[in-house]
Amino acid sequence: MVIIGAGFGGLEVAKALGRAGIATTIIDRHNHHLFQPLLYQVATAALSATDVAEPIRKVLRPHKSVQVLFGEVTEIDTQARRVHLDCGQSVPYDHLVLAAGAGHGYFGHDDWAQWAPGLKTIEDARRIRSRLLLTFERAERSTDPDERRRLLSVAIIGGGPTGVEMAGAIAELSRHTLARDFRTIDPTATRVTLVEAGPRLLAGFSEELSEYARARLTRLGVRIRTGEAVDNVGPTSISIAGQPEPTGLVIWAAGISASPLAKHLGETDRAGRIAVDDTLAVPDLDGVFALGDVAVCTGADGKPLPGLAQVAKQQGEHLGRSLAAQIRTGEALQPFRYRSRGNTAIVGRHAAVFEHRTLKVKGWFAWLAWAVVHVYLLVGFQHRLLVSMQWLWRYLTYERGARLIAGDDASFHDPVVPRGMV
Amino acid sequence: MVIIGAGFGGLEVAKALGRAGIATTIIDRHNHHLFQPLLYQVATAALSATDVAEPIRKVLRPHKSVQVLFGEVTEIDTQARRVHLDCGQSVPYDHLVLAAGAGHGYFGHDDWAQWAPGLKTIEDARRIRSRLLLTFERAERSTDPDERRRLLSVAIIGGGPTGVEMAGAIAELSRHTLARDFRTIDPTATRVTLVEAGPRLLAGFSEELSEYARARLTRLGVRIRTGEAVDNVGPTSISIAGQPEPTGLVIWAAGISASPLAKHLGETDRAGRIAVDDTLAVPDLDGVFALGDVAVCTGADGKPLPGLAQVAKQQGEHLGRSLAAQIRTGEALQPFRYRSRGNTAIVGRHAAVFEHRTLKVKGWFAWLAWAVVHVYLLVGFQHRLLVSMQWLWRYLTYERGARLIAGDDASFHDPVVPRGMV
Repeated sequence: MVIIGAGFGGLEVAKALGRAGIATTIIDRHNHHLFQPLLYQVATAALSATDVAEPIRKVLRPHKSVQVLFGEVTEIDTQARRVHLDCGQSVPYDHLVLAAGAGHGYFGHDDWAQWAPGLKTIEDARRIRSRLLLTFERAERSTDPDERRRLLSVAIIGGGPTGVEMAGAIAELSRHTLARDFRTIDPTATRVTLVEAGPRLLAGFSEELSEYARARLTRLGVRIRTGEAVDNVGPTSISIAGQPEPTGLVIWAAGISASPLAKHLGETDRAGRIAVDDTLAVPDLDGVFALGDVAVCTGADGKPLPGLAQVAKQQGEHLGRSLAAQIRTGEALQPFRYRSRGNTAIVGRHAAVFEHRTLKVKGWFAWLAWAVVHVYLLVGFQHRLLVSMQWLWRYLTYERGARLIAGDDASFHDPVVPRGMV
Repeated sequence: MVIIGAGFGGLEVAKALGRAGIATTIIDRHNHHLFQPLLYQVATAALSATDVAEPIRKVLRPHKSVQVLFGEVTEIDTQARRVHLDCGQSVPYDHLVLAAGAGHGYFGHDDWAQWAPGLKTIEDARRIRSRLLLTFERAERSTDPDERRRLLSVAIIGGGPTGVEMAGAIAELSRHTLARDFRTIDPTATRVTLVEAGPRLLAGFSEELSEYARARLTRLGVRIRTGEAVDNVGPTSISIAGQPEPTGLVIWAAGISASPLAKHLGETDRAGRIAVDDTLAVPDLDGVFALGDVAVCTGADGKPLPGLAQVAKQQGEHLGRSLAAQIRTGEALQPFRYRSRGNTAIVGRHAAVFEHRTLKVKGWFAWLAWAVVHVYLLVGFQHRLLVSMQWLWRYLTYERGARLIAGDDASFHDPVVPRGMV
């Protein structure tokens, strides 16, 4: 049994198989499971990278039948039933679960990636954090008022939950945390623009909640441009519906694209995902399964299930149990049924939305519920405690403890702004 | 007034001048003040990088007369009295304080740096952490027993406080934290070698405490080789007194070398430091001062003061007050007198040494005192609380919360082991 990917889905499969004592190998190109819902807080200096990452080996320590392999899968050979790794090794499989998730999708404009980093990995979050804090440092040093205005302009492309969360967090960072830390610039003058090509923010929620998010973000000073598409991204500006807009930092929260490994299993859809049947099996490939963001699975309403952590997690739990039963007793695989626990997004301090069937909650209570649920979902008691404490601290003081510029993006001469332009 | 460097020394000068309302610019190439005494805990996955870094702007927020500039100084022009930055800007000064600290010194073998990273910055600590955790992952994947043995061999070069701390922490990491996390290798078989060219460990302490450190490390399984010099460092082995020793990871804790900026102020000593008089002024340069690791300052006993955080801190406090008085009232500069608060180093769980004049403390009590003092010395209440909690957690569970492989060194094909050799 081989599982590719230790995200929300893959990890649950491994745990279920481990509990049944079935020999399993789980392969991931990171040594940690990442709690992606809080990654935007790493990018906005509220949490540290280690707060949202848990070593995969530690999570699976009790499951002696599960072997963790750190490495990148380069090829799945469905004929020979082998998975090939970057180091040249290969691993044979009887059953294979592809749970490799998704990366950013730039709609065919891969060159935009250098100017508009997305937010999927720890490295992404650290990159955005460094660039975000650097743009204030650059502005403080600049003597040209136009250049300062440009540097203090942040554009976020994509009005889904990530875009909304980033816009709210950056507005609060500039208006509260950094407000009194500079002598030349006024960080509260930072212009945050949120661009969404669709007609409204948070398209996955009802119109009422989406309108609430717009109103709250506007109150925080975020400029919202819905119904307008970004048609170019460059080092110092983007173009929105043909109009150039100077930018000091651009963040990509628009498209995602499934892991390229999906293509090894057959025909994929526009987002690079492979279709699976209701047992999560890939049609025509015996003993091969896919789940989470790499798969398209149809729900009870005939529509594809959304790309949410809870979908991947439930699929993983189900598939792990179902496979264990099949292997142990020869029982047929059970069909998966998704049970939504509701959908939530945070806008800012005291402001979140929560929706579950006809129940719609917004504001202070949804915000508190969001925090409690996310702390509860974190893997590991230590993380729960540390994250809660840092949130309480931030709530009381408006400080953000992780204001660290470090790594590749820690220099004034990073690819964002070529030297001559500083 | 211009200060270069926001380490222990420079930051105290800035605070004292800020309290006196004197217009001051402090320049640093990082946006954070780093609490270096705990950096080895970041490198060994016990703390996260943000736990030991505090934004310089936040520390100096109350001091409205102090301007923080993020940038790297490339040249000090003592004739024109200007400091030049990497971006092409320059800053004029009337008074200049050089507090730029020290980096690693490889005794003329700068090519060793790629195989034997040192521990001075956040990037260094993350690099060592990633390489350290990777070497276990590589060993788990290897099918060659000799290769596994090599990978599980860690050599630390230099038997001062940093070398002793690293050796103890890595031994504990492999023997406790990682012990049950692998299926193929046995992390407790990791061989940690501590090499010191001098006759004993912790040369800055008395022989009794140095013997204690040796005994405690030996009990943790560390092989100690004193009186033997490393004469070569390569990608997969080092050479100790002519004998090759296979290594999976090498850490440099041997030599330090003052910031190259010292050379702009005049003749430097073998370690690259500039001599200062008892007022911390650089002779023959009007209004130019140096302190901390970049300066040589003679103590009351006629010997140069040691390169300790407390020396830099006291020098900074003194110089800041002394300069403020001179500028405000024309008073002459006061001579600096160092008051040692004792010297301490940690060896491992329940084991530390502390020495102050004739007082020598070792073992459990010194360990507890070490922890209390270091928490107390951390800048910022939030850091104190978070670090204390993580220490308590680690003490109770042996877990290390920051086991994160990420960044440049997160791939199997990093420069440590060229691809063909994995």
